[in-house]
Amino acid sequence: MTAGEVRVVPVRGLPEVRPGDVLADLIAGACGDDLADGDVVVVTQKVVSKAEGRLVAVDPDDPRSHKPVVEAEAVRVLRRRGELLITETAHGFVCANAGVDRSNVDDGWVALLPRDPDRSARRIRDGLRARTGRQVAVVVSDTFGRAWRRGVTDVALGVAGVAAVVDLRGTPDDRGRELAVTEVAVADELAAAADLVMGKASRVPVAIVRGVDAAWLREGSVQAEIVRPPAEDLFR
Amino acid sequence: MTAGEVRVVPVRGLPEVRPGDVLADLIAGACGDDLADGDVVVVTQKVVSKAEGRLVAVDPDDPRSHKPVVEAEAVRVLRRRGELLITETAHGFVCANAGVDRSNVDDGWVALLPRDPDRSARRIRDGLRARTGRQVAVVVSDTFGRAWRRGVTDVALGVAGVAAVVDLRGTPDDRGRELAVTEVAVADELAAAADLVMGKASRVPVAIVRGVDAAWLREGSVQAEIVRPPAEDLFR
Repeated sequence: MTAGEVRVVPVRGLPEVRPGDVLADLIAGACGDDLADGDVVVVTQKVVSKAEGRLVAVDPDDPRSHKPVVEAEAVRVLRRRGELLITETAHGFVCANAGVDRSNVDDGWVALLPRDPDRSARRIRDGLRARTGRQVAVVVSDTFGRAWRRGVTDVALGVAGVAAVVDLRGTPDDRGRELAVTEVAVADELAAAADLVMGKASRVPVAIVRGVDAAWLREGSVQAEIVRPPAEDLFR
Repeated sequence: MTAGEVRVVPVRGLPEVRPGDVLADLIAGACGDDLADGDVVVVTQKVVSKAEGRLVAVDPDDPRSHKPVVEAEAVRVLRRRGELLITETAHGFVCANAGVDRSNVDDGWVALLPRDPDRSARRIRDGLRARTGRQVAVVVSDTFGRAWRRGVTDVALGVAGVAAVVDLRGTPDDRGRELAVTEVAVADELAAAADLVMGKASRVPVAIVRGVDAAWLREGSVQAEIVRPPAEDLFR
């Protein structure tokens, strides 16, 4: 690696994840000896939800059968357009259909978001340390739409061992003046970078981001650092 | 590189950019022989705006002197909170202060967004091909805030030689069923990945993303693919 370079490496060979599986064991098995201290392991929400048993049975023959599940998971509906609901979840995430999703899940089931994705990330991080001896960080990622821009991108639902937001306020710019507001959501940028090697249907639910700025590797929380309280939000 | 891996490499040694500079020449000079066919070169908006002379003089002693410039650049103000305006630009971007910014610009000046960032990207791409013989793609990036989530992330203002959005609708998921909506804004994910190696004040305004899926390397446009028309937008 050249100085300052970041590498994003897909982790292949993960088996199908089932409720009760210990994700850290599966990831450690798939990575082999490839994990290093300071790596950020990005894990997509779907396998986290499966391992945690966050699955609900629905009528496989009714394309609208997940709607009551969505209504139950949403604490607020911000907008409706046809079948699409833009919702706020109990975590405070604003996303389509409260994160309830039937893609890459067995017919007759839908997956819910993890109950506490920061905790999910910590559990995987701790398990990887116990299993491999490596001090890694973990990001649990999901695919969200945005206001104002078409297309979805991957963002962070939870983190462990890495900052969610890096505060560059007060850091001098090139000219030695203070930068006004530069709080960078690095957890979301890590999730987006990982998605570049994931491919939606190629069963690569895990990627390693290597070479991340060591200053970012502190304990972080998406819930505390990224989720914007409604009172502070100009668009709710 | 291992199969499927993506590398993000900062480009150092770019000189201070001045109006009239040919960015492709400066980037080619800084990259040396390091560019390869299929590389995506991510260039931050600030150096593009400087090279294109998108600078406006303001009173350096008046912290509010950029306000009339912001008003002139905004076609619509969506929200106001104190000094912060959330605006729509002539391009259709929704961002703070119409993209008008005084960080990393000489005192007494502010930088505006490029007039047509897709065209800016094409010009850099064509120049790099002429100068190096390499067929690369270019993303012009900028730092935007978001609704609902704290922190800023880098997104794409313009692209050349790479898709802005990759449409995975109709691609079968793991279980062979059609995925409902998976239009991935890969240009925004490329911009976010590049930001991982660019610290805000370390004068790294260019990064190379190497190993990107070859299927994405077609002619693209942020304006046509990502900018969401107000009529289609649930949050304007």
